[in-house]
Amino acid sequence: MGWAIALHGGAGDIPLSLPPERREPREAGLRHCLDIGVAALKAGRPILDVVELVVRELENWPYFNAGRGSVLTTDGTVEMEACIMDGATMDCGAVSGLTTVVNPISLARVVMEKTPHIYLGFEGAEAFAKEQGLETADPSHFITPENVERLKQAKEAKAVQVDYTEPSNAEIENGGPLMESSGGTVGCVAADGLGGLAAATSTGGLVNKMAGRIGDTPVIGAGTYANSFCAVSATGIGEAIIRGTVARDVAAVMEFRGLSLKEAAAFVVERGPKRTTGLVAVSADGEVAMPYNTIGMFRACATQDGYSEVSIWN
Amino acid sequence: MGWAIALHGGAGDIPLSLPPERREPREAGLRHCLDIGVAALKAGRPILDVVELVVRELENWPYFNAGRGSVLTTDGTVEMEACIMDGATMDCGAVSGLTTVVNPISLARVVMEKTPHIYLGFEGAEAFAKEQGLETADPSHFITPENVERLKQAKEAKAVQVDYTEPSNAEIENGGPLMESSGGTVGCVAADGLGGLAAATSTGGLVNKMAGRIGDTPVIGAGTYANSFCAVSATGIGEAIIRGTVARDVAAVMEFRGLSLKEAAAFVVERGPKRTTGLVAVSADGEVAMPYNTIGMFRACATQDGYSEVSIWN
Repeated sequence: MGWAIALHGGAGDIPLSLPPERREPREAGLRHCLDIGVAALKAGRPILDVVELVVRELENWPYFNAGRGSVLTTDGTVEMEACIMDGATMDCGAVSGLTTVVNPISLARVVMEKTPHIYLGFEGAEAFAKEQGLETADPSHFITPENVERLKQAKEAKAVQVDYTEPSNAEIENGGPLMESSGGTVGCVAADGLGGLAAATSTGGLVNKMAGRIGDTPVIGAGTYANSFCAVSATGIGEAIIRGTVARDVAAVMEFRGLSLKEAAAFVVERGPKRTTGLVAVSADGEVAMPYNTIGMFRACATQDGYSEVSIWN
Repeated sequence: MGWAIALHGGAGDIPLSLPPERREPREAGLRHCLDIGVAALKAGRPILDVVELVVRELENWPYFNAGRGSVLTTDGTVEMEACIMDGATMDCGAVSGLTTVVNPISLARVVMEKTPHIYLGFEGAEAFAKEQGLETADPSHFITPENVERLKQAKEAKAVQVDYTEPSNAEIENGGPLMESSGGTVGCVAADGLGGLAAATSTGGLVNKMAGRIGDTPVIGAGTYANSFCAVSATGIGEAIIRGTVARDVAAVMEFRGLSLKEAAAFVVERGPKRTTGLVAVSADGEVAMPYNTIGMFRACATQDGYSEVSIWN
């Protein structure tokens, strides 16, 4: 029993030949955010603060698909989503359809703490963010030249339906728009070693998604979940993760079947459709699991006993 | 093993003294919709058609809180939500934030069948409905004088936070705005006796909710869920149902703990906070469960062996 933290920057068909200029800034981001999370845990910060802090940093890092760096809808706009959940109280907050909020994860927390609701979307969420004084920015803050190019590629490839498209081996080896379009969601889960658990996830969604599309990230039990057993943040093809109620299922298999976190997480990811799902999870007793059935997952973790890892593939 | 169908018109603190003019139109609506569902099952209609057909009728019946008859947000607007799921394929569709679509459940099905996504919300969902030619209507179609009065009462009582308000016994006995504000979501689940299962849920949400608030209905695994074990539609206080991943949990307890539908449904409803949750569920082998931990639930069911029921309280 000790503290534990795990984070991700998206799972997907990440080509093994990913060029260093696309790999290194992501690895650096993971390391930077892991350090921030570990320092917060060592300082005894509340567990919700820890996951919010880490996800804010991941949102601000433009190489991940969340906050600044979010991918674009078919209309060329950003529509960001986020979710946070406290395992001890099972309080949770979620937001969708954000266009100006710099840190969606912080708005999710304010929805949790300052409204009678769990989940606000689109104009109502934006209006609430302004009423609460959250930092907002012009769309130019979120939209990177790389994402403008990704949308162009996706439209040329008619790759709206990432979830129905099986990439060729050549595409996987050479990299291509698909890897970029399904990867990049960010998330963090943490355990304080005293029974406290929390999960947070944030995303820009899928490249070339329809305006109004809601993915798994803000859906409690799909992309994000925490209770007294574990905290889970999932990433990949949102539609498969929603159908699989992936995050809840990890906790449900632990509770109802008595499996360990590692066993439960592996079971849930393996039963899902191939190349769709990755997740990071921590249990109340400080166990960490980071399984995926995609080619890779940008991920990092650390535990109180001194173990630490930043990795992409097996 | 035979066909089975169950439907609800909302769970809540329905006063035992509910006046006949408020009770009878709802009982008549349940009976009417049950008859339609039974006829469709006997005619061998596809199971998704059955639940969609029944929920469309419930949406059109102005005495329930879905479609025509939806309750109002704090801004005096309607924002409707719906969700449909096919147990055999686990395909699903969901919509939120609808303001003009006459039958939200049918839009949820079109999202399922004609987009690469599961879930569309607000302006994007409205635009897609128009593009697909779904029937739309002016807000005056949805807004009933009774709901204008309910919003006024809720604002006077500051009863936005239905989920944090414990009604007094006097309120429950005498009826009051609370019963009206938490009840009325509609849903239908059905089994075709051949292994086919489907669930559908539709709602106007909570009286006096914030604009943009998303409840449990469109959240796969919370208000709506179907797989090869069972189909579930939940109703009550959405925030409690989201936290409890109620619909998924019924199926998960069956799968991972080996309980029967009735046992699993009772377990899930009993572990939830009191006065928050009701559900209707059918299993692949034609078992029906309709538990609730509220004062009552508008509900009806029928099975192939000739059993039929329309009821509100125990």
